[in-house]
Amino acid sequence: MSKKKLGIGIIGTGFMGKAHAFAYRSALAAFPEIPVPVLRMIADVNVDRAAQAAHQYGFEKSSGNWRDLVNDPSIDVVSITTPNTLHKEMALAAISAGKHVHCEKPLSPTLADSTVMMNAAEAKGIISQVGFNYIKNPMLKIARDMIVGGELGEITGFRGIHAEDYMHDPQSPWTWRLDPSGGPGVVADLGSHIISMARFLLGPIVCVNAEVETVVVQRPKSTGSKTMIPVMVDDIARMLVRFEAGFGGTIEANWVKTGCKMQLGFEIEGSKGALAFTQERLNELKFYKSGNDPRSSGFTTIESGPQHPPYGGFCVAAGHQLGFNDLKTIEIAEFLAAIGGAKPHGPDFREAFEVQKIVEAAIQSSKQQSSRVMVN
Amino acid sequence: MSKKKLGIGIIGTGFMGKAHAFAYRSALAAFPEIPVPVLRMIADVNVDRAAQAAHQYGFEKSSGNWRDLVNDPSIDVVSITTPNTLHKEMALAAISAGKHVHCEKPLSPTLADSTVMMNAAEAKGIISQVGFNYIKNPMLKIARDMIVGGELGEITGFRGIHAEDYMHDPQSPWTWRLDPSGGPGVVADLGSHIISMARFLLGPIVCVNAEVETVVVQRPKSTGSKTMIPVMVDDIARMLVRFEAGFGGTIEANWVKTGCKMQLGFEIEGSKGALAFTQERLNELKFYKSGNDPRSSGFTTIESGPQHPPYGGFCVAAGHQLGFNDLKTIEIAEFLAAIGGAKPHGPDFREAFEVQKIVEAAIQSSKQQSSRVMVN
Amino acid sequence: MSKKKLGIGIIGTGFMGKAHAFAYRSALAAFPEIPVPVLRMIADVNVDRAAQAAHQYGFEKSSGNWRDLVNDPSIDVVSITTPNTLHKEMALAAISAGKHVHCEKPLSPTLADSTVMMNAAEAKGIISQVGFNYIKNPMLKIARDMIVGGELGEITGFRGIHAEDYMHDPQSPWTWRLDPSGGPGVVADLGSHIISMARFLLGPIVCVNAEVETVVVQRPKSTGSKTMIPVMVDDIARMLVRFEAGFGGTIEANWVKTGCKMQLGFEIEGSKGALAFTQERLNELKFYKSGNDPRSSGFTTIESGPQHPPYGGFCVAAGHQLGFNDLKTIEIAEFLAAIGGAKPHGPDFREAFEVQKIVEAAIQSSKQQSSRVMVN
Amino acid sequence: MSKKKLGIGIIGTGFMGKAHAFAYRSALAAFPEIPVPVLRMIADVNVDRAAQAAHQYGFEKSSGNWRDLVNDPSIDVVSITTPNTLHKEMALAAISAGKHVHCEKPLSPTLADSTVMMNAAEAKGIISQVGFNYIKNPMLKIARDMIVGGELGEITGFRGIHAEDYMHDPQSPWTWRLDPSGGPGVVADLGSHIISMARFLLGPIVCVNAEVETVVVQRPKSTGSKTMIPVMVDDIARMLVRFEAGFGGTIEANWVKTGCKMQLGFEIEGSKGALAFTQERLNELKFYKSGNDPRSSGFTTIESGPQHPPYGGFCVAAGHQLGFNDLKTIEIAEFLAAIGGAKPHGPDFREAFEVQKIVEAAIQSSKQQSSRVMVN
Repeated sequence: MSKKKLGIGIIGTGFMGKAHAFAYRSALAAFPEIPVPVLRMIADVNVDRAAQAAHQYGFEKSSGNWRDLVNDPSIDVVSITTPNTLHKEMALAAISAGKHVHCEKPLSPTLADSTVMMNAAEAKGIISQVGFNYIKNPMLKIARDMIVGGELGEITGFRGIHAEDYMHDPQSPWTWRLDPSGGPGVVADLGSHIISMARFLLGPIVCVNAEVETVVVQRPKSTGSKTMIPVMVDDIARMLVRFEAGFGGTIEANWVKTGCKMQLGFEIEGSKGALAFTQERLNELKFYKSGNDPRSSGFTTIESGPQHPPYGGFCVAAGHQLGFNDLKTIEIAEFLAAIGGAKPHGPDFREAFEVQKIVEAAIQSSKQQSSRVMVN
Repeated sequence: MSKKKLGIGIIGTGFMGKAHAFAYRSALAAFPEIPVPVLRMIADVNVDRAAQAAHQYGFEKSSGNWRDLVNDPSIDVVSITTPNTLHKEMALAAISAGKHVHCEKPLSPTLADSTVMMNAAEAKGIISQVGFNYIKNPMLKIARDMIVGGELGEITGFRGIHAEDYMHDPQSPWTWRLDPSGGPGVVADLGSHIISMARFLLGPIVCVNAEVETVVVQRPKSTGSKTMIPVMVDDIARMLVRFEAGFGGTIEANWVKTGCKMQLGFEIEGSKGALAFTQERLNELKFYKSGNDPRSSGFTTIESGPQHPPYGGFCVAAGHQLGFNDLKTIEIAEFLAAIGGAKPHGPDFREAFEVQKIVEAAIQSSKQQSSRVMVN
Repeated sequence: MSKKKLGIGIIGTGFMGKAHAFAYRSALAAFPEIPVPVLRMIADVNVDRAAQAAHQYGFEKSSGNWRDLVNDPSIDVVSITTPNTLHKEMALAAISAGKHVHCEKPLSPTLADSTVMMNAAEAKGIISQVGFNYIKNPMLKIARDMIVGGELGEITGFRGIHAEDYMHDPQSPWTWRLDPSGGPGVVADLGSHIISMARFLLGPIVCVNAEVETVVVQRPKSTGSKTMIPVMVDDIARMLVRFEAGFGGTIEANWVKTGCKMQLGFEIEGSKGALAFTQERLNELKFYKSGNDPRSSGFTTIESGPQHPPYGGFCVAAGHQLGFNDLKTIEIAEFLAAIGGAKPHGPDFREAFEVQKIVEAAIQSSKQQSSRVMVN
Repeated sequence: MSKKKLGIGIIGTGFMGKAHAFAYRSALAAFPEIPVPVLRMIADVNVDRAAQAAHQYGFEKSSGNWRDLVNDPSIDVVSITTPNTLHKEMALAAISAGKHVHCEKPLSPTLADSTVMMNAAEAKGIISQVGFNYIKNPMLKIARDMIVGGELGEITGFRGIHAEDYMHDPQSPWTWRLDPSGGPGVVADLGSHIISMARFLLGPIVCVNAEVETVVVQRPKSTGSKTMIPVMVDDIARMLVRFEAGFGGTIEANWVKTGCKMQLGFEIEGSKGALAFTQERLNELKFYKSGNDPRSSGFTTIESGPQHPPYGGFCVAAGHQLGFNDLKTIEIAEFLAAIGGAKPHGPDFREAFEVQKIVEAAIQSSKQQSSRVMVN
């Protein structure tokens, strides 16, 4: 059991700020070997919100100025959970101060900015992490093990999607998510998750034909407002992709997919087997193995349990179910473990950069009548 | 109740020949108003097989020569269920003899041949039908009614697939399906089904970016043979498509999708609702309606019943389940009804021609680095 | 291929009369070895309905008097599909005339009457059959093979149910199903199906504790009527049962189970494996095998295909789905095969009598405060 | 936001000790209004394990003697997570010291002991809680609201089960769970969960007919041992029950149900609707509403989201999924809130006592040939 301590700071108190707080609070209980996270400071531009968050999440102090946090010598680790446009400045400052940095996805609005961030992190030698939390699911670790171990044989196809419907109502008002200075729309926001999952499971993607479109072309300035603001970012992206290993697939990202709350999933086939998964049932993995007795073969629904590490850190009994915040805890625990000297599992800034290259290739392809664009 | 009689002839006694026989035998029992089918003749190049089929399926006579059937004056209706390469000659002869013609899909190996067949049928004024049986499902009729009736609002996306795995084993030997003189591979064999379904539900497709590939590049000449024959037709086709109505989608056709026995399905979204379906559970349609009480909203699984015509022709009680052969019976009954003077529901030769245009556009796109090809 | 012919007569033209007609029409096409059914006569108390049915289902003649049918020397086989109260007289007359008799379930309103019918059939040596069609599903044959073959090890439990909701609306009017002279209510109507399935899979049931109750205690005389008729038969039956083999289980029969259209299903466990099934997805069987790699074990969803006889008689390709009428076809085909000399698979009148003993034991137990009643 | 603090002590560091630790650590982050839990002490008979747990879970101190914890004046709240036989002594001591007490289920081995514990808690006026965590699921709160609000109409039936398979392997060795001095077997261990759920949703159960049996009658003393120890507690319990409100149902508890990892679920019907749930998919509730358009009616799968409080305390976006430890967090947060003066939601010791009365009635019924036993 580790005794090493790491001072933790979180910038941002919204959806992801809270998710990080849960994760830092639970990580050691689930992973006894990691360094001990000590919750030092939480920062938010709203100083009252920062103070409340510090109280509620158990941080020692709070600040309305993120630079206080980045410059605090008692802090070793900085989590950046603010809107995308702010990531770069914060990350560079934290890296410069020698902090290990976890930054939420997407890393930045542009590939150029992400390159700067990646280079800074690598030059400084800090441990970086990006919040592609869904790949931390034990069922996906098993899936990857099966693929890498050859249990599916030679892979022949991938059919991936990340679709939700939080933007599907044309009357839901304009938000910062739609500000093009923050980067593209769904292709970055949700597309990056399914691209990161594809890469985690199957390796690099080398070319893309994509169609990216805006479905709701204007939105009310605020709820009920008659003033409409044009939407400049995309709602749906559809791609034909090809993997370095030679096989092809399709990827969809869609935040107007009516009725879908968390359709982040895939179907993967190989010469010897197949896998299927959806985040809506994150504790299940479907597995088909060729060559079994045809009378009783079919897809097997594997339910998560202690035989799928690190499930057992959360519960010793099978079938009890992990949740979203548990995946975030795994992500944070692996990050802390890497800082403590364990093998980093990422995804780090470089991986986020690789994901973003595909995002940008998709946008470029779409502008060129969905022609093929190589991801160099 | 109709008293009009129609003499029936079937060419071919294989998978589809038998399916047609079941359907002609059951049609009147399920649909009392259609003309009475009288089972006159079944033909097969193998005269013994033809005789056995006539006995087993209850046909008055049989022949080893399909021209006997086409020229028999007691026959009004000809079903063509032979391999694709034979369709054209048989259909033209039957049309020329004034028969109404049902031809299995795909209509012919090439768009040029299909054009000839379509023009001949239309010039002669006969009723033609093509075997896209899956769209005859009552659940799909309901789906179409909902879409046409505006219950889904403005459509925003389609995600369709027809995948099976009957060709996935590289050791399974070469077959006539792989003969390029019969036309393309999976894009025609399975792709045509999901394309016809997309068109049935959502209308014309106007452009395609596609990638079509061969996964198993050679196969044993026969089971266990060491002699390998190169495979010249495709195993997988993936497409970005755009519909005339303005929205986009993806379509996949795949006969090497390991573990999938009948994954013919779709997800459709609109501004007011969504639908999802898979042929593996053909008696279920999933429906989401926007704007309901959020506390209790979600996808509703509609189970087929008499409230979904023509289910009630088969069974008066809900939940009892239709099967594949029942869909074929609906198809045949509608065909006979149209011959009897009812409004034709198709799909006719023209519809098959339209489907084939998309198939050919996909192949053309794939040859041009998946560039965009317009379906004119 | 058999050339032997059997003259067929059906009494009744309702739900089950039509189901029998479909089945006799399709049986030879799916089962080439059975005797050839020749559709001689259909009878209904309504002579017009009989004539229409004869035309629609392809019978040579019709009658308003079932005795004409029973006494017709060209008829070898009689299907009785009338209300329960009429079964006995018809069956005894048909047996007396030397016909083979298929009688719909339940065999008769009382165990006493069923005993008479069974004894008559056995004394005459005719082939008898009762319409427990659901056990004819290929997936249940596989299930039984697995159990009998020891693949589940020693059985430890059964949890069975047959629930629908066609009586759940208190405003739906009184019907003949509710006439106590026809026997008990749901325990006979649906309960007999799940009991027959339990016996088919697992063998005799030797004791029962049951609670049988009426939920909707009165119903309108007709739709919208203010006159209410008291309901004297049961709506729900719940049972603790014990099988001869030593293990226990529960059985529920329920025709007021709101929302359930065809919940006829079971869960069976043994020391080495488990099975689960529901008729709502009749082409699927779920199978769990102990002792597999725990990392990838779970319930496998087996989809029906030609590897599950007699599926292949209907379709050569897996995953295409059988329907309710196909199960009836299998039942009728096996009945005709047995008449032709093949091994009878039943269920015959004796089996229906055994099922009815459990039905009566349930009612008796319920009257005695759900005390244990032995099925002798 | 509450500033009141409560000192927390946990006795036991096993499966449930850890679950409590997770919950106390996360509660305030998810529920800002509750008193602030301060993690004072964790005790375990193994002093090293206690020290490790204190470090890992963030408790200020540890002890090898639970009396230290119970007598510590800085501690306001005691969680008891030790084996059942130890509950009574610990709880009485904690109550006597004026602590609020959370005790894991079942409360004690016998109804007599539980009565003593309940009376002590009520006499002292402390807040008591028992660990029936599954009813803390937001989807079950919604289910209860629907039932209480009359959305299902008059309830007509309940079909509940809690089945797992952790004891199904006859070679898995004897454990403390099988010690009859700890009380009955599965009927208490799992049965109490489904009974508590039934009561939470539907109110009191007034009579029981039950069959309780031991399937694996002896087990190895330890893994691989040839010495067999007879098993004196039950593996399966099956019950017919009747609720005070007048309707009936069945309940099964089973820890040898092969293949089932967490089949804790129910089906409930009423005159106007129905609900179905299984813990294996704890973020889903199935809901059927009578009287909707029959063309599009069916069971709706509701996915958990912020519209189902207190989901939103964990995540602001729908579909992200809660896990087992989140349910425990809700339970602990409600307990702390009640200590802080909010309305207690229980289940308290009295509720556990009521559950245990049904457990004992089941055992008594089984001994009397499954005769009806009233729960007074």
